[in-house]
Amino acid sequence: MYKLFKPTKKISSKLKKALIENPHWILNDFEILDQLITSEKNKTNGNIVDLRDIFLKKTKSKLEDLSKLHTHTISAAYENFLGASNLHRCIIKILEQKNLEKLIDILTTDIIKILQCSVIILLFSGKEKVVLNNPYFINIKNEEIKKIMRSAKLTKKKLTRLKSNSTELYTKKILNESSPKIYSEAMLSLCTYSEDYNSILILGSSSKNFFNEKNKTDYLDILAKVISIQLRNHISALK
Amino acid sequence: MYKLFKPTKKISSKLKKALIENPHWILNDFEILDQLITSEKNKTNGNIVDLRDIFLKKTKSKLEDLSKLHTHTISAAYENFLGASNLHRCIIKILEQKNLEKLIDILTTDIIKILQCSVIILLFSGKEKVVLNNPYFINIKNEEIKKIMRSAKLTKKKLTRLKSNSTELYTKKILNESSPKIYSEAMLSLCTYSEDYNSILILGSSSKNFFNEKNKTDYLDILAKVISIQLRNHISALK
Repeated sequence: MYKLFKPTKKISSKLKKALIENPHWILNDFEILDQLITSEKNKTNGNIVDLRDIFLKKTKSKLEDLSKLHTHTISAAYENFLGASNLHRCIIKILEQKNLEKLIDILTTDIIKILQCSVIILLFSGKEKVVLNNPYFINIKNEEIKKIMRSAKLTKKKLTRLKSNSTELYTKKILNESSPKIYSEAMLSLCTYSEDYNSILILGSSSKNFFNEKNKTDYLDILAKVISIQLRNHISALK
Repeated sequence: MYKLFKPTKKISSKLKKALIENPHWILNDFEILDQLITSEKNKTNGNIVDLRDIFLKKTKSKLEDLSKLHTHTISAAYENFLGASNLHRCIIKILEQKNLEKLIDILTTDIIKILQCSVIILLFSGKEKVVLNNPYFINIKNEEIKKIMRSAKLTKKKLTRLKSNSTELYTKKILNESSPKIYSEAMLSLCTYSEDYNSILILGSSSKNFFNEKNKTDYLDILAKVISIQLRNHISALK
């Protein structure tokens, strides 16, 4: 057997006989056919001599492209699912918190981890100041929060804005030197369910592509709504 | 060796490897080439005249197969997304309701439509009877609800049970003749967030495969948790 498969110049007569009796071995095997055609091409210095060759080359590259695309689609579907299941973990954790302090705590501990962010800040401006023992809950003036919302083009319908242009990041202005470097940020409007206050949630990431403007914001919009509802519930319970 | 050359349907992997490493065995052998082209010709009414044609034909069919597969993957991803986006619509609607009556109303109107169910029933057993003006909110005895939970094997960890065996459906027992016919049902435990009462949500579908035992319950589990949290909030507000 060894001899039969030795890289000899010519095919052994036994193997030849077998191949002639079983042409489908080769004809049904894509890889062998591919190899035969590639070697034949190399022999002729790769010069394309036939329209079929051109078509062949194109079909082959189309096949490769589609294979790649297919793999990407599978991986995108998987990431979508992973994204949905992480979003659901966040929603349940947010709903489980029974007061404002606990809500802010969970945002700056568990939620920041699930979302793989570097920083979460909640800007708040109500009729009365709300004092919490958490440095990431920041009371600011109503005019200032309205200015931020205008420049970020946040409205009742557009709840999320992503930004990856590092010179324009809001987190740059409020975080100090020792904070983690932020290269992209998401701003979520939390005003959907109340007129009594204005509030913005800012998520910052150390990766430039994490909150890229081109990304979809469907999941962050849901998160904004869920946090808005809970914020309204907890704020009204303070009164 | 004998085995390698047996007239099997497929080429042995050893022989395949040898041919791929020595394509000249075939390419330099006129008789084998002739045999390959003749057999392929016979298959296709003699139209194929070149190895490239054979390869092309195979590439094309492979391309078509992959295209089909790709389309299926995209559609599965889309369905998953549709599922997630409907779940999110339900979650937001549920959270928006400010009291128990409104929660039950939204379940039996909007949520039933989004989930494409035929019926939604909430079974409830608390220390005190809760009276609502909604026929789908049903007070039952504590022993009875516990019996249902045991037979459905619902626990704190297993929140959802699907059933498509029409003789065992719980909805059969409580719905009257004029109600829509139910062929599968989902039971969701709503006891996750309180020890003060027992509660089960039942979704019924007119399609046998809608709540098939083989389906995943990830999204219904999330729904059960969200409704549980809101039920606890609204029940405690009644006191």
